[in-house]
Amino acid sequence: MIIKHKSNPIIKPGDVKPSIEGYKVLGAFNPGAINFGDEIVLLLRVSEGCKTREGYIRTPVCRFENGMSYPDIVELKSSDPEVILKDTRSIAYKGQEYLSTISHIRLARSKDGINFNVEDKPFIYPADETEKYGVEDARVIFIDGKYYINYTAVSEDSWATALAITEDFKSIERKGLIFYPENKDVAIFPEKVKGKYIALHRPNNSRFGKPSIWYSESPDLLHWGNHKCIVRPRDNKWESQRIGAGAPPIRTFDGWLVIYHGRGDNNVYSLFCLLLDLEEPSRVVRRASTPLLAPTEPYETEGFFPNVVFSNGIAEKDGKIYVYYGASDDSVNVVITDINSLLGSF
Amino acid sequence: MIIKHKSNPIIKPGDVKPSIEGYKVLGAFNPGAINFGDEIVLLLRVSEGCKTREGYIRTPVCRFENGMSYPDIVELKSSDPEVILKDTRSIAYKGQEYLSTISHIRLARSKDGINFNVEDKPFIYPADETEKYGVEDARVIFIDGKYYINYTAVSEDSWATALAITEDFKSIERKGLIFYPENKDVAIFPEKVKGKYIALHRPNNSRFGKPSIWYSESPDLLHWGNHKCIVRPRDNKWESQRIGAGAPPIRTFDGWLVIYHGRGDNNVYSLFCLLLDLEEPSRVVRRASTPLLAPTEPYETEGFFPNVVFSNGIAEKDGKIYVYYGASDDSVNVVITDINSLLGSF
Repeated sequence: MIIKHKSNPIIKPGDVKPSIEGYKVLGAFNPGAINFGDEIVLLLRVSEGCKTREGYIRTPVCRFENGMSYPDIVELKSSDPEVILKDTRSIAYKGQEYLSTISHIRLARSKDGINFNVEDKPFIYPADETEKYGVEDARVIFIDGKYYINYTAVSEDSWATALAITEDFKSIERKGLIFYPENKDVAIFPEKVKGKYIALHRPNNSRFGKPSIWYSESPDLLHWGNHKCIVRPRDNKWESQRIGAGAPPIRTFDGWLVIYHGRGDNNVYSLFCLLLDLEEPSRVVRRASTPLLAPTEPYETEGFFPNVVFSNGIAEKDGKIYVYYGASDDSVNVVITDINSLLGSF
Repeated sequence: MIIKHKSNPIIKPGDVKPSIEGYKVLGAFNPGAINFGDEIVLLLRVSEGCKTREGYIRTPVCRFENGMSYPDIVELKSSDPEVILKDTRSIAYKGQEYLSTISHIRLARSKDGINFNVEDKPFIYPADETEKYGVEDARVIFIDGKYYINYTAVSEDSWATALAITEDFKSIERKGLIFYPENKDVAIFPEKVKGKYIALHRPNNSRFGKPSIWYSESPDLLHWGNHKCIVRPRDNKWESQRIGAGAPPIRTFDGWLVIYHGRGDNNVYSLFCLLLDLEEPSRVVRRASTPLLAPTEPYETEGFFPNVVFSNGIAEKDGKIYVYYGASDDSVNVVITDINSLLGSF
């Protein structure tokens, strides 16, 4: 049985301190998750906009100067005819595009997996032009003493996936773009299979096909090849538009367990279980025909971008599986379950 | 001085035998090129449609059975209300999409670089579902006794780039997809730089930015990483829409010489020179401000897809540079020049 935790949402925008005075936290969601010491660490996606000011449109920007970066605000007069509101998410002004929100990655720590302390400062903040429009949706794995974090880097060249390494969740070393645009939803396996690192990823499709889950191999986590499309959207109401992998896959006796998301009719996001072959992870063993989790609760059906459940972080604790998920691009939530329940849910 | 050869077009669709009875060769264009023995070998893109039949719409398809593949024809009644002509290039029927043409790669050989013998049979023909809609625009390099060929593989999952190896231009060994969708215009450098293979490639942009030239590194030609966007379209009439690399770059004393294409206003394609740093090929040294070559002659301004010049193959012979280029998705043409003229053209 999959039960949404009674304390949901466990982290809300109001629990997060803005990066600077004048910013407003609009979402704390889509967390990566990992065990670190005796804690569970979440890598929250924190999206921020600006506090309003009468007669002005204010938009957050990242400034890059002398190798340093910092958050700032662009203020435009609402009456300026050159200000064009493209949709709720972006503004065009004199050939420049601004987003109404920019995301960074913030850490939150917990001993029980439910009650989290959110840090005051960003952990991964846009560092250069390749991350100009924000860093989003971190996934994290632990290999040989190091934590490998991949995240979506958004820029004027569209969205791609970057890799960074930390050993202490204090400093990070950036390793650049490992998947070029347009690509997101990268889930790297936590161990090699037959001598190779494996990742699932999600290229974009603009003409043929629909955004699907792809498989790739790497000798070193930096260079990726042998790309294969392995799971495509199905013609049902939950997956009619696109699908993408979630948290790093979990090794079970039956296969690699993946929880993926589908965007279906009316832009509703749901979560599904998928099982990949242990030795040949490009081979699908089992695929759930109905969602594991769909938006039903008010915190899932209302909010910044309603009717979205999206998971990119899972942790284990005392034999239980903590599936963290973002709801409505707004809050962090959790389902506590176990491997047998997940394997039995197909 | 860049002079289009007086014998242009040097290969026309009529010079190419169809793959099967019932097909019609519509284009022989965009050739890869390489020196092989005392010959120049072109890897032609041959596009084929079907001969017409009154009252029917006929479309070429690749059949895959028992590990073999072969060309075939689908015939639909024009009067069938379920047949939908989407544009001149594709047909929809009962949820299935068909292209009006499918491309394969055909060899042509020449001792003088001008007069070519086109082989009767395809050299690279779609082998599986990842190439279902055709193989296009080959580039070829020679490293340590082997010829590495990359080409665009088009399928229901969109367009991507595949790698194959040959030693004799008779048999090929396929190495799978090296760049996932949507990606084309992959130009691999003919030697390592600082111990790494280098490629230029061209991801697609559907929302932010315009299709641009990206840089990547690889330890083995199979796995690619460290992706960087290095050259973007400029706001001029020749490059307003998109750009992409052409043939494998040529090492010169001044840097790596690249001839790239730009698609500008009214979908006109032109060719430009670009120079990349010898030691740091992600660094642009020089970029031409006007085209090296633009469509002006009747064979470039008329044809299957008019006003296109597109180069993906260059060969050297007796100190001269033979820049082969496709015109109007129709024919093969050549400019004979030399390195100094190209370097002096900026």
